[in-house]
Amino acid sequence: MRLRLYNEWLLTEDQRDRFDVVLVSPRNPLNIGAVARAMANFGFARLKVVAPYAPHWHEAKSAVGAEQLLATAIEKATLAEAIGECTLVVGTGTLTYRKPEQTVVRLPDLAPMVRQEMEHGGRVALVFGPEKHGLTRQDLSYCHLLVEIPTGAKQPSMNLGQAVAVCLYELATRALAVDEPAAETAMRARAATAGRLELLAGVVERAMVAADYSPATMREANRHDLRLLLRRLAPSERDVRRILGLFRRILWRLER
Amino acid sequence: MRLRLYNEWLLTEDQRDRFDVVLVSPRNPLNIGAVARAMANFGFARLKVVAPYAPHWHEAKSAVGAEQLLATAIEKATLAEAIGECTLVVGTGTLTYRKPEQTVVRLPDLAPMVRQEMEHGGRVALVFGPEKHGLTRQDLSYCHLLVEIPTGAKQPSMNLGQAVAVCLYELATRALAVDEPAAETAMRARAATAGRLELLAGVVERAMVAADYSPATMREANRHDLRLLLRRLAPSERDVRRILGLFRRILWRLER
Repeated sequence: MRLRLYNEWLLTEDQRDRFDVVLVSPRNPLNIGAVARAMANFGFARLKVVAPYAPHWHEAKSAVGAEQLLATAIEKATLAEAIGECTLVVGTGTLTYRKPEQTVVRLPDLAPMVRQEMEHGGRVALVFGPEKHGLTRQDLSYCHLLVEIPTGAKQPSMNLGQAVAVCLYELATRALAVDEPAAETAMRARAATAGRLELLAGVVERAMVAADYSPATMREANRHDLRLLLRRLAPSERDVRRILGLFRRILWRLER
Repeated sequence: MRLRLYNEWLLTEDQRDRFDVVLVSPRNPLNIGAVARAMANFGFARLKVVAPYAPHWHEAKSAVGAEQLLATAIEKATLAEAIGECTLVVGTGTLTYRKPEQTVVRLPDLAPMVRQEMEHGGRVALVFGPEKHGLTRQDLSYCHLLVEIPTGAKQPSMNLGQAVAVCLYELATRALAVDEPAAETAMRARAATAGRLELLAGVVERAMVAADYSPATMREANRHDLRLLLRRLAPSERDVRRILGLFRRILWRLER
């Protein structure tokens, strides 16, 4: 007898393949286990872990009853590598002590954006920072959006496992539901991947240097601002090709 | 400077007073702590605990960093006593192994019912069972509704702390919200005017010419594409200033 209201999986296989949960330097093995549990609860399958603290990471993987997806989790040394193939990178965190540099979206408003990106064949990453301090300013510069879970200011900071559960619940039920009719969307161009944006940023930066755009001491800050700018503009792959073409030509002329 | 999108509390004081979270015989002190944390995150204040296992309950209450609401939690011997004053009692659980005897509501559909009850001056209880087996058939007989969190059948059973977080997130944001925050409009940067985009297009076009980007016969088509590109990217006024600065510098170098 089938009693449950839900399907075996909440997500289609294709959706599972194109949605990454990324943990940056998680510390607590219990939290890592809780993240994997929430992913399994809501039908997510791809976990990436950036620069984990090795002993705790191995403890989490080998815990009794550990989720199978911990065994297939992918380890990366940097966030840039982890999200290289993604077209929409969503950072998480509370804003109490930080002035955000990217667009901030309330979690209840995130679903349509993720749904649209998935319907267009994009690849989405949801990125969580270390338990203590959350994502750094540099981590966030790789993100197109910053999502905020609405919490009260008396106790804004959520436990990692609970924050992941809340986000995945929201997306599984409101962005990725299996029965959502595939909308008319072939119009919008394919988004550029994070890797392509980095390539473009590199060429623009070389042009900046070749044009003596600013003193060498400003380069780090310029690189950071450029990364933010490209995420705000969110060019399509076609746009990236066009802009790359122009800057390569400019660069060639400047360096000649 | 106020950066967060949300109020100090997500719920009004009156709502907090008329919403109880009830744990029936919780075992794991870490779970009890996680429940209290989630309640604090989402602005709930009233915790009731039914027949707790005394040593673990005291351990949870006295843990370092325990939420203040654990100290004011109310202990009851039976569920019947705990929910005596409530007008809507909502049980939680997965239905995999049990045939429900009451109306089952998906969590995403629960908010309107809770909102209506609260608006009519009612008192609502959300009841969670012990970690291992969930609410018994007798416990459920005190419930008006049974709410199911949509999870995939491969791993339907949620961790208690995560289940509470997901339910309270859903109700705080969709049933009890104090007011819609006049949100990200304040954060989103001012869009550039069409006139500024044209100015930018002119400078970029001059850089294209100076760099011999394409033959003169293509200039009309390039100008058109550039205009489309800038609208697609929709830079803010601040972004326009930044891009203008770079292209003016490049132009100056190319034309020197």
